[in-house]
Amino acid sequence: MPPSPIRKLAPFAEAAKSKGIKVYHLNIGNPDLPTPLIGMEAVRHNQLSTVEYSHSMGIESLRRRWAQYYQEKNIMVDHSQIMITNGGSEAISMTMMACLNHYEDVLVPEPFYANYYGFSTVAGIVFKPVKSDIEHDFAMPPVEELESLITPGTKAIMICNPNNPTGYLYSRSDLEKLAEIALRHDLFLISDEVYREFCYDGNEHYSIMQIAGLENHAVLIDSMSKRFSACGIRVGALVTRNKELMATVLKFAQSRLSPPSFGQILAEAALDSPPEYYEGIYTEYIERRNTLVNGLNHIPGVYSPMPKGAFYTMAKLPVDNTEKFAQWILSDFQYQNQTVMLAPGSGFYATPGLGKDEVRLAYVINKTDIERALECLERALEVYPGRK
Amino acid sequence: MPPSPIRKLAPFAEAAKSKGIKVYHLNIGNPDLPTPLIGMEAVRHNQLSTVEYSHSMGIESLRRRWAQYYQEKNIMVDHSQIMITNGGSEAISMTMMACLNHYEDVLVPEPFYANYYGFSTVAGIVFKPVKSDIEHDFAMPPVEELESLITPGTKAIMICNPNNPTGYLYSRSDLEKLAEIALRHDLFLISDEVYREFCYDGNEHYSIMQIAGLENHAVLIDSMSKRFSACGIRVGALVTRNKELMATVLKFAQSRLSPPSFGQILAEAALDSPPEYYEGIYTEYIERRNTLVNGLNHIPGVYSPMPKGAFYTMAKLPVDNTEKFAQWILSDFQYQNQTVMLAPGSGFYATPGLGKDEVRLAYVINKTDIERALECLERALEVYPGRK
Repeated sequence: MPPSPIRKLAPFAEAAKSKGIKVYHLNIGNPDLPTPLIGMEAVRHNQLSTVEYSHSMGIESLRRRWAQYYQEKNIMVDHSQIMITNGGSEAISMTMMACLNHYEDVLVPEPFYANYYGFSTVAGIVFKPVKSDIEHDFAMPPVEELESLITPGTKAIMICNPNNPTGYLYSRSDLEKLAEIALRHDLFLISDEVYREFCYDGNEHYSIMQIAGLENHAVLIDSMSKRFSACGIRVGALVTRNKELMATVLKFAQSRLSPPSFGQILAEAALDSPPEYYEGIYTEYIERRNTLVNGLNHIPGVYSPMPKGAFYTMAKLPVDNTEKFAQWILSDFQYQNQTVMLAPGSGFYATPGLGKDEVRLAYVINKTDIERALECLERALEVYPGRK
Repeated sequence: MPPSPIRKLAPFAEAAKSKGIKVYHLNIGNPDLPTPLIGMEAVRHNQLSTVEYSHSMGIESLRRRWAQYYQEKNIMVDHSQIMITNGGSEAISMTMMACLNHYEDVLVPEPFYANYYGFSTVAGIVFKPVKSDIEHDFAMPPVEELESLITPGTKAIMICNPNNPTGYLYSRSDLEKLAEIALRHDLFLISDEVYREFCYDGNEHYSIMQIAGLENHAVLIDSMSKRFSACGIRVGALVTRNKELMATVLKFAQSRLSPPSFGQILAEAALDSPPEYYEGIYTEYIERRNTLVNGLNHIPGVYSPMPKGAFYTMAKLPVDNTEKFAQWILSDFQYQNQTVMLAPGSGFYATPGLGKDEVRLAYVINKTDIERALECLERALEVYPGRK
């Protein structure tokens, strides 16, 4: 695996901090909002004397509670169709290993969550990107384009809905088109829905798990990390009604023994969070989104679509190369002793050359900090030598 | 991956339990002893408001504390040489992926910890077993035999010390011979030392990390699971002084984001456990070992070496096939409404046909239960139709 552009920046961020410069992290989706108290209390009041392995599929009571959560969202699955994983990350890698053999390929709209690419390398599978573009606000590529790339070696289509990094929300019609292709070519349709709760402007989330006839083809990837601002608990899930697939996944799960116990305890309790918890988080993200995206679009030469979900946006900057700019803004720039860390767009594309004038920004810092970060970005673009 | 013999037994154990039969689990190393209270209290009193990702290498204070633990054991490493993983399991899979390319091979004395084989399959590497046998109490195979299997595609030798499943403890001389081969052929020497604390009869543990000149070749796999009876915290480590290797491992670690936070909090505190904690555990395991192994050797036709470490033994039974026997004793036998679950030996060998008259037994249940389990086993062998 080559080091991703974002990882190459880490030493520059460290260097800036060591000079006393405040760095606003717009580069990573590590939410700062509180983890549900009800979940924290469940961990604090645990009465375990021995922290044993849990079942390789996860603690049964968590899986039953999680199934109930899905049923409330019209995703009709039971606990036997839910495999608890070490975060969404492990669900992704297990899905790739279980659905595809070495050298088989998966179609993925790009830009995509950067770690998909790393996991595909580990799984020894071929990653086939299909471009979505900022001019169309990163809408799903035309299905004809997707379909034209299918070969006998193609085994899956993988999407992230709502999308990290673009914020694009797949419509019911989008998903039905994808389902039709998946059925016609007998492909798995894999959907990463870890941002399900974060859909804005009156849009409702629709899941591939709600599409009839897709029972053997749909694989849902999920995680508690973003929903509950609890990335460190490492609790995700792989959900499928395909029994044969689940049996294969179970073999991978058994070899790594079990997911973490305390994270599972927290997750099970957190699923009982009151509506106010979700509402508070939701309102906060909408305000942050509006602050960030409206702010970006007020900077001359910058364009960001208005994300319909998740808590990221991909924006276009008026610079020669965002990898260079993201390094420069950390190493050669400061405004009132502050600067910004950005994720260069190229890290979210597999096609060489794409994303060079884009950056991903996460709105998981507070509004005041977002405003300050925007001010830094605007000033930086005014003086950047590589400005277009 | 084929289902392992032990996993095939699970439904038979469930069926026995559903008939009200008490099943003694000698099949799995899930310790029943208490997790250190000091570790549990650290989790219970945590003051986190948001459970964020930790660093991909793990929480720095844990890595520093863990380095201190090693230094007290004359393993001179610092925190930059320690990668915290999701249990020892992830350390094994990351080591295999980072040390070997697809189709390259690793030499492993057999019998071996069964999951090594599963991880090697996932990593796409070739597993080359080298037989150790019960007649020699599973001593390390002659180095000439190991060396004769080395080809240009061989990149590593992997051992478990003390050994799961045999209890064999590698001597300093064994390890120096392995180190010499590793250096001569430029191979990684990978040592899984998760049972380091469990060495009996006055034997001291010696680590590959203590061998001079092996800095770039030695990779240590470790875990808190067994040491602290805390399998569910999912905290292990990959330790190496090889900077290039650690940089590769870091890429895998970054793609899965971070190890679990609460487990790391528990582990860091547990490393401050008082000497009485270790002594209590140690004394208990010695008594259990003696009870189990002496008991086995009193059963006509049964032989078990006396393990020098870990908490398992591989025993020879007077039966046609231990896979069949292990199933039969669950499904067709009970003594005073009790029976035993055993791990068939064949699951710990890669060479077809080996281990058919052996079983692995873990002594992680209390002495009274071990005695009852032995009684069941003795009665079962008296009436088993496939007895030799």
